[in-house]
Amino acid sequence: MDFPDFSLDTSLLEGAKKPEQGETYDVIIIGGGPAAMTAAVYASRKMMNLAIITKDFGGQVRETSEIENWIGFQNINAKDLADSFEDHVKSFDVPICLNCGVSEIKKEDTIFKVFTDNGQAYLSHSVIFSTGKRHRPLDIPGEKELVGRGLAYCATCDAPFYKGKKVVIAGGGNSAFTTAMDLLKVGAKITIVNFIKGWQADESLQERIRSTGNVTFLDYYQFVRIEGKNQVTGVVLKNRESGEEKKVNAEGVFVEIGLLPNSNPVKNLAELNKQGEVVVDCSCRTNVDGLFGAGDVTTVPHKQIVISAGEGAKAALSAYNYLVEKTLI
Amino acid sequence: MDFPDFSLDTSLLEGAKKPEQGETYDVIIIGGGPAAMTAAVYASRKMMNLAIITKDFGGQVRETSEIENWIGFQNINAKDLADSFEDHVKSFDVPICLNCGVSEIKKEDTIFKVFTDNGQAYLSHSVIFSTGKRHRPLDIPGEKELVGRGLAYCATCDAPFYKGKKVVIAGGGNSAFTTAMDLLKVGAKITIVNFIKGWQADESLQERIRSTGNVTFLDYYQFVRIEGKNQVTGVVLKNRESGEEKKVNAEGVFVEIGLLPNSNPVKNLAELNKQGEVVVDCSCRTNVDGLFGAGDVTTVPHKQIVISAGEGAKAALSAYNYLVEKTLI
Repeated sequence: MDFPDFSLDTSLLEGAKKPEQGETYDVIIIGGGPAAMTAAVYASRKMMNLAIITKDFGGQVRETSEIENWIGFQNINAKDLADSFEDHVKSFDVPICLNCGVSEIKKEDTIFKVFTDNGQAYLSHSVIFSTGKRHRPLDIPGEKELVGRGLAYCATCDAPFYKGKKVVIAGGGNSAFTTAMDLLKVGAKITIVNFIKGWQADESLQERIRSTGNVTFLDYYQFVRIEGKNQVTGVVLKNRESGEEKKVNAEGVFVEIGLLPNSNPVKNLAELNKQGEVVVDCSCRTNVDGLFGAGDVTTVPHKQIVISAGEGAKAALSAYNYLVEKTLI
Repeated sequence: MDFPDFSLDTSLLEGAKKPEQGETYDVIIIGGGPAAMTAAVYASRKMMNLAIITKDFGGQVRETSEIENWIGFQNINAKDLADSFEDHVKSFDVPICLNCGVSEIKKEDTIFKVFTDNGQAYLSHSVIFSTGKRHRPLDIPGEKELVGRGLAYCATCDAPFYKGKKVVIAGGGNSAFTTAMDLLKVGAKITIVNFIKGWQADESLQERIRSTGNVTFLDYYQFVRIEGKNQVTGVVLKNRESGEEKKVNAEGVFVEIGLLPNSNPVKNLAELNKQGEVVVDCSCRTNVDGLFGAGDVTTVPHKQIVISAGEGAKAALSAYNYLVEKTLI
């Protein structure tokens, strides 16, 4: 078995070709998460003339610590997994605009024009838009510092690491309550903290969690800060009615106050749903000919690495079929 | 990085629990390919009470030799990849009915009844149907008679028997070309015959095979019959342009002309398309409440390992949501 060589040094990346502004690419892939990286591997193997525009490689994978649901690995370090994806992409000689945010994508006749934050514009016959989502953060002291050290954003990924531990969940909607369900199953001691007055989760879901009698509910509380040096030790909350502060000890904090799709660059081009997700069909097609969406930024259900990777492969193959049909390749 | 332990001996499997006929499972997963195995991992991590019914583990992955598009591995041996999936599944204490074909699935009220070839019946609240595809036969004189006597459907399994021999491959897609690659490695003299006008394989793969200069390409030809009494001696082809017949001497014929879905067990239950694939929506739901489809047996576009794995995860999470909604879990 030939394992990817994780010792590959990053000079490979620094040496990577840059996209050319004069060129019209077969496809430009926007983003650097599992969907974008898998799309890049598939497009490369189809010998499409492609370029990647991304802020970084790894996406949300780098926000978690260990992964137990990447098929084939009972347990894998998230960084190692993201690195192996990145190395796979870089094994092809693909031009990459790294540290590049995309401000807008326009379509003129059949050509897409991808504008970057730093004022450049790249042309292509098709686009795979796979910029992912970002967690709505609590935006309080201690949060950034403790990500992956007790502070988590994904129960499906991380709940099993909190067997029997004290955990605080931020959020009052369905994802907070399904997070509670996942954590109850592993015997965690749970406190759920809701910012808005009144819980938003489905009644049935709330009822099921309440009926266990094992969860503490704090309604109308605000997170003040997360405490802990190298590991979460607790949270400080403020009662929004009385203004009183309160400390809750915890080894884990799950933030489930929503995800925001990074769909801004296509908001004037493609159909988005109410949540701002790019609407795609089962072949990753958007309502715009030649524009494909893949992964968490889209309406695909269940945001998971293996699902995004699959969607990335689909998008690349759908883009290839599109170019063949239009005899652009 | 914790690599899966490929040395795990198969006694683990022989020791696996068997499904119970009296029990009503949350979900029964049918099949053992990438979709089914990923579904099993996701369902296990959701602590669903599940059982797996399958003929084997690995599915079509075990029919190929090397894989270059499994994200994270620039090159991986197919058997090693399939083994790593299988070990992941077996790391959970899931009851498995191995060597079990499924003859039919029925739904009575809200309960599914899964009948096996050996006369058993298992019950569940939901089903993930992920039985994959099988090879399409040429359906011409000589084929059935010469299976295993020079006529083969699996290069990974059989290529080593054709060292230095003359072989004809039927097909123009990726599997025909990877078959050519396997046969080139053992020094076979190869002719590839494509029925449709124009080759369908990835450009990069075509290029690699063409650059060897050791393969004869016949585009737009039809197989008329396979010749030979106890052993293949050649094939008769027809030029689809001119109608002219042509004999090619060969000791081996590899058939790589596509795949047929193994959807027979649900043909009286679920909606199938013209190709016999189980019709699913983007969340892997079929038209039957509680019956989910995943992977190559479904209408999912672009049959690829990473896509099937993604669909398996989707199906498991959709089944979980279904059970939560119906308060069956």
